[in-house]
Amino acid sequence: MVFSSALIENAVNEFAKLPGIGKKTALRLVLHLLKQEPGQVENFGEAITRMRKQIQFCKYCHNVSDEEVCSICKAPSRNNGIVCVVESIRDVMAIENTQQFNGKYHVLGGIISPIDGIGPDQLNIYSLVERVKADEIKEVIMAVSPTIEGDTTIYYISKKLKDYPVKVTTIARGIAFGGELEYADEMTLARSLTNRLPLENYLQQGK
Amino acid sequence: MVFSSALIENAVNEFAKLPGIGKKTALRLVLHLLKQEPGQVENFGEAITRMRKQIQFCKYCHNVSDEEVCSICKAPSRNNGIVCVVESIRDVMAIENTQQFNGKYHVLGGIISPIDGIGPDQLNIYSLVERVKADEIKEVIMAVSPTIEGDTTIYYISKKLKDYPVKVTTIARGIAFGGELEYADEMTLARSLTNRLPLENYLQQGK
Ligand SMILES: [Zn+2]
Ligand SMILES: [Zn+2]
Repeated sequence: MVFSSALIENAVNEFAKLPGIGKKTALRLVLHLLKQEPGQVENFGEAITRMRKQIQFCKYCHNVSDEEVCSICKAPSRNNGIVCVVESIRDVMAIENTQQFNGKYHVLGGIISPIDGIGPDQLNIYSLVERVKADEIKEVIMAVSPTIEGDTTIYYISKKLKDYPVKVTTIARGIAFGGELEYADEMTLARSLTNRLPLENYLQQGK
Repeated sequence: MVFSSALIENAVNEFAKLPGIGKKTALRLVLHLLKQEPGQVENFGEAITRMRKQIQFCKYCHNVSDEEVCSICKAPSRNNGIVCVVESIRDVMAIENTQQFNGKYHVLGGIISPIDGIGPDQLNIYSLVERVKADEIKEVIMAVSPTIEGDTTIYYISKKLKDYPVKVTTIARGIAFGGELEYADEMTLARSLTNRLPLENYLQQGK
């Protein structure tokens, strides 16, 4: 692509770094921005910069947060006794969208996957155990993807928690085995939370 | 969509204002940026803001420019005697990409389209006539889309230029009638520039 403006070339190149955005799409977006008011475009640019610069990860649940403690952990209306363990921020959002869960979260930051070189130590598992030790957590819901890696993770965490008076459950298999949690529709996700199982039942199901 | 961070919600909403970007895609892009270094994301945000704030429109050809006069108008290697008239900045880029044209441009900023309420006065036609008057322009190539509106625009401009010693040509109809110039492949576009016609021939073709 030949540009007669370095300003535009630079903006196009930056957009084209985003996943799924090719040079042609990047150019289309930049030319769209060119037609907007400078103030509006500045809002866009600053929203992006500020988001990355100011975002924090909640010191309790590792969810993204505007402050040291996230709005979910801080909410007095939410049930402290129940923690939903998920792989990622996206999963928190997916479950929040169902408006069916009133407990708290714990974001692992991934899933145990030896093939990808991800072991338990790279995930936020230690801090989960610490929360179970320190808090009045009565139930840990394992809401990880129903895959082999998910099962490994569930098994590993349940072993780590077995000496504490906490019930470990898993979300119901409304989601097809091998499916990704974040792509489940809200109804399925909500139902699989409501129909969650004690871990023993889950492990038996697999047999 | 439920967000636990206003920073993220704001960034997602800004992305979702872009054409063709829905909320889900916007979230995917924001979560991608979240994984990048803050400095990199700042570069992105600033490239966008700076682009819109600092961009100018060339005082001669109305192309986007980083300065008062664009890099094409300023280039001493380019032929002053030949001006290619296009509808938009995108068309300049499409033709520049062919690397087959060594003259200058004139960006109309649209096309005469009574149905859309766009008359000659809303377009950069007056400044084109002024350039023809003042400069040593020997040829004006009309490289507008081969549509009814394009033909109307060609006809209108050719009438405005008829008293000046300038040859008006049109790009060859390599592009299907009704097709949009900017979507033509580079080969077709390059060839249609090389095989451009004097306006008389073009008007006869239509009969
Ligand atoms: Zn939190
Ligand atoms: Zn120029």
